[in-house]
Amino acid sequence: MNGAQSLVRTLVGCGVDVCFMNPGTSEMHFVATLDAVPEMRGVLTLFEGVATGAADGYGRMAGRPAATLLHLGPGLGNGLANLHNARRARTPIVNVVGDHATYHKKFDAPLESDIEAIARSVSPGFVRWGTASGTLGADTVEAYRAAMGPPGQVATLVVPADVSWGPGGVAAAPPFLAGRAPVDVARVTMVGDALRSGEPAALLLGSAALDATGIERANRVAAATGARLFSETFPARVRRGVGIPAVERIAYLGEMATAQLEGLRHLVLVDSKPPVSFFAYPGRPSWLAPEGCEVHVLSGPSDDTPATLEALVAELGAGPAPGGAAEPGRPGLPTGELTAGAVAEAIGALMPEHAIVSDESNTSGLFAAQATAGCPPHDWLYLTGGAIGQGLPLALGAAAACPDRPVLALQADGSSLYTLQSWWTMAREGLDVTTVLFNNHSYAILHMELARVGTEGVGERARHMLDLSPPDIDYAGLARSFGLSAWRSKSAEEFGAHLAEALATPGPSLVEAVLPGHPRGA
Amino acid sequence: MNGAQSLVRTLVGCGVDVCFMNPGTSEMHFVATLDAVPEMRGVLTLFEGVATGAADGYGRMAGRPAATLLHLGPGLGNGLANLHNARRARTPIVNVVGDHATYHKKFDAPLESDIEAIARSVSPGFVRWGTASGTLGADTVEAYRAAMGPPGQVATLVVPADVSWGPGGVAAAPPFLAGRAPVDVARVTMVGDALRSGEPAALLLGSAALDATGIERANRVAAATGARLFSETFPARVRRGVGIPAVERIAYLGEMATAQLEGLRHLVLVDSKPPVSFFAYPGRPSWLAPEGCEVHVLSGPSDDTPATLEALVAELGAGPAPGGAAEPGRPGLPTGELTAGAVAEAIGALMPEHAIVSDESNTSGLFAAQATAGCPPHDWLYLTGGAIGQGLPLALGAAAACPDRPVLALQADGSSLYTLQSWWTMAREGLDVTTVLFNNHSYAILHMELARVGTEGVGERARHMLDLSPPDIDYAGLARSFGLSAWRSKSAEEFGAHLAEALATPGPSLVEAVLPGHPRGA
Repeated sequence: MNGAQSLVRTLVGCGVDVCFMNPGTSEMHFVATLDAVPEMRGVLTLFEGVATGAADGYGRMAGRPAATLLHLGPGLGNGLANLHNARRARTPIVNVVGDHATYHKKFDAPLESDIEAIARSVSPGFVRWGTASGTLGADTVEAYRAAMGPPGQVATLVVPADVSWGPGGVAAAPPFLAGRAPVDVARVTMVGDALRSGEPAALLLGSAALDATGIERANRVAAATGARLFSETFPARVRRGVGIPAVERIAYLGEMATAQLEGLRHLVLVDSKPPVSFFAYPGRPSWLAPEGCEVHVLSGPSDDTPATLEALVAELGAGPAPGGAAEPGRPGLPTGELTAGAVAEAIGALMPEHAIVSDESNTSGLFAAQATAGCPPHDWLYLTGGAIGQGLPLALGAAAACPDRPVLALQADGSSLYTLQSWWTMAREGLDVTTVLFNNHSYAILHMELARVGTEGVGERARHMLDLSPPDIDYAGLARSFGLSAWRSKSAEEFGAHLAEALATPGPSLVEAVLPGHPRGA
Repeated sequence: MNGAQSLVRTLVGCGVDVCFMNPGTSEMHFVATLDAVPEMRGVLTLFEGVATGAADGYGRMAGRPAATLLHLGPGLGNGLANLHNARRARTPIVNVVGDHATYHKKFDAPLESDIEAIARSVSPGFVRWGTASGTLGADTVEAYRAAMGPPGQVATLVVPADVSWGPGGVAAAPPFLAGRAPVDVARVTMVGDALRSGEPAALLLGSAALDATGIERANRVAAATGARLFSETFPARVRRGVGIPAVERIAYLGEMATAQLEGLRHLVLVDSKPPVSFFAYPGRPSWLAPEGCEVHVLSGPSDDTPATLEALVAELGAGPAPGGAAEPGRPGLPTGELTAGAVAEAIGALMPEHAIVSDESNTSGLFAAQATAGCPPHDWLYLTGGAIGQGLPLALGAAAACPDRPVLALQADGSSLYTLQSWWTMAREGLDVTTVLFNNHSYAILHMELARVGTEGVGERARHMLDLSPPDIDYAGLARSFGLSAWRSKSAEEFGAHLAEALATPGPSLVEAVLPGHPRGA
């Protein structure tokens, strides 16, 4: 068994049986194992940002890592933005990067670069170099263990070509995984005291508290104490829909978030970070909690958040909450002009059961959450790290992890173009992803931000940098060229009909909603 | 004047008047200056790898830097692969990366990451943080000075948002630029002695020796001494065509390179590095010069290579070389099956005068150099760092630098998909770039490498990872969706007619050559 075979067999033994890849020459021995180890599913992507974003989507839905396979420093660089998002989501990923043969590095061949420095930026907790074929299996187990956490993380394993091709590989057994930290009773008591104080309080929920169980428990706490419930602005994954209490997200805009949090005396962090402004703005605060508001940490990334919430429920003697669960209800199909609101209504009217939503709709998607609140239960995935180009790869990976569930990608135009190559892999793999493409011909969010940051003297030349037209981009044409079924909709009626057809079409499809232009053009 | 204005005015004062950009919120103040400082041309790209590759193409042709404008660590990450290529090409680039406001960084907002670590990998010689609005102009001058070298480099200037928007900016005056090192007479004498020894010798030319003057001087040396002339495998830029002596490139495949260099006793490096294998292969050497061959350094990256070659000519008393200059001659238009060879012939038949060629044609372009050897003088740009996805952005940047010259992008299918967003910017800017897209439905080079690295047990599942079909990708459709004129050619006659039409069409266009499948399918 060579090193590469030991790597792949070890991964499969750990349950890591999907690899999103962009291999090059240094990774050919990994690729060559795919016939001998058919349990490993190789998924080819056309750009590394697709591979890493797909691994993020896969990990968020499967709860276990996918592997990536990237080609030296430049391949890792291409995948970096979505690994940044995965780091923020704490998604488990085994990030495999091929390198030159150990003895070849000193020659500074053209592709030589500082892989370690690049990898540390997204894998601060685990970067390991395979040094010998005989120990690569053991290295792989450590990478898997690190990826699984807690907390989950991107674990990078760098594999020199000669370590891959050398003999004496040994597949290593799956590791014992560390458990989460036991419930910290002192913290539970302290938070219980704060919530019983009668002072205005809120729970701020992060991803580990945003599954059905976590939300139910947090809702009991809220009902028993009068505390309010918020979620982080961009959690990795949220359960929502009929029967699940709705949790209010902290707004993206700092001034709106400040208004949401106004008057609070206690803010309880439940696997979340204190709310801060996404960007800094002149004269506006970065820290969003009101002055005098005490911030309590109930549970952190390595804690057992569900058990901690259960303990808090017990501490407070909180019985089943009488209300709060979302009622069934869908908007009707919209008519007339095709606006972002009309798109949201159509999505609410037609969203299939058991859906997964990958949301990178940015400004256009503001209405989608409300329009789908009464839809059947579904999972919603957000852009965790602010690095755009996540939405399509994330949808791809989620669909690979959950082949029986329909995936909806709500996708802003500008962001889609960072990783549009995702569409081809969706087509090749026959994944049931329906992309709703909001075409407002601009980076609309930047038109808003341009004013918010206090610029002066802005004219045509500056605004031209924020517009995606001219020339007009034909997103349906792009998707078709990659093998998708695609429609272009210019009215609400058209969009509803096209979306229904797209959802009924097996495999990937796209509906481009042509919206009424950017703010200055509309 | 705020910091951003001082930055942009300083750049313009240094002659840096084009900025390829993907701005976000942190860079809005830079964008806002574009109306007040109309001398700065902002060129919007849809993905950072396009911006950085375009800056590389611009710098190679203009001999002075373009600026980039990238959005924090993830934006830099997206641009990293083409900055890697630019580092290898030693292209001057002022790489501007926006960052969070200084006081905001401690809050670890979602987009926070280790910019320094990422930047160092491509800017080892210069990464500077703007720390105050009043000194940002001075920082900019230092970045420009560092970019210009010698040797040229990617100089990264990180600009926090509050340094951009803060008052008190001062535009700084252009710096005094360091000259190149004076001619090292001892080295010239030593090399002269080696070349006069009568032992088999060769000059290996890098980019600084590959303009018309450098080649002419090297050719005199060769004619006077019997030395052979080689060029690096992937130089940044080569002058070639009628009247210019042809220089043989060192082959990509190590075994072919070894054959080229066989028997040499002296190898003289002229702004080049010793030839090494691009990748390592089991049982094959990384160092390609024959045993017993002495390697002499005539000039390095910071030296004055043209003057050094002139001194060598004088040392040897080498008169004008009687021959070697390429004779006029073009192949005829091809007929019959459309093969890579036929595409090359059509290019040779039709290449316009004063052309610039951006060559990322990989395996498909093997015949292009020979077919164009007798075309009018032109410049040929190579993939310097092996990070694919360079070809289209490089063509874009070259066209922006040389608006009066036609640009040909010879582009392999797989590589094109890393930065296909380039086509939109070409259309928006009305750049005269004709893309010849070689569609062989595969990463053909990897089918070759899969065998060369000594893999065993390779079957369908492995080879599937190297194929770009199914589904078939419609490259002409992609280009049209981004606003280009595009044709799809399936015979040699069609290709010739389409290429002629594309070359006659103002603005960007694409001709997709549908070739006879990948190695295992053909």
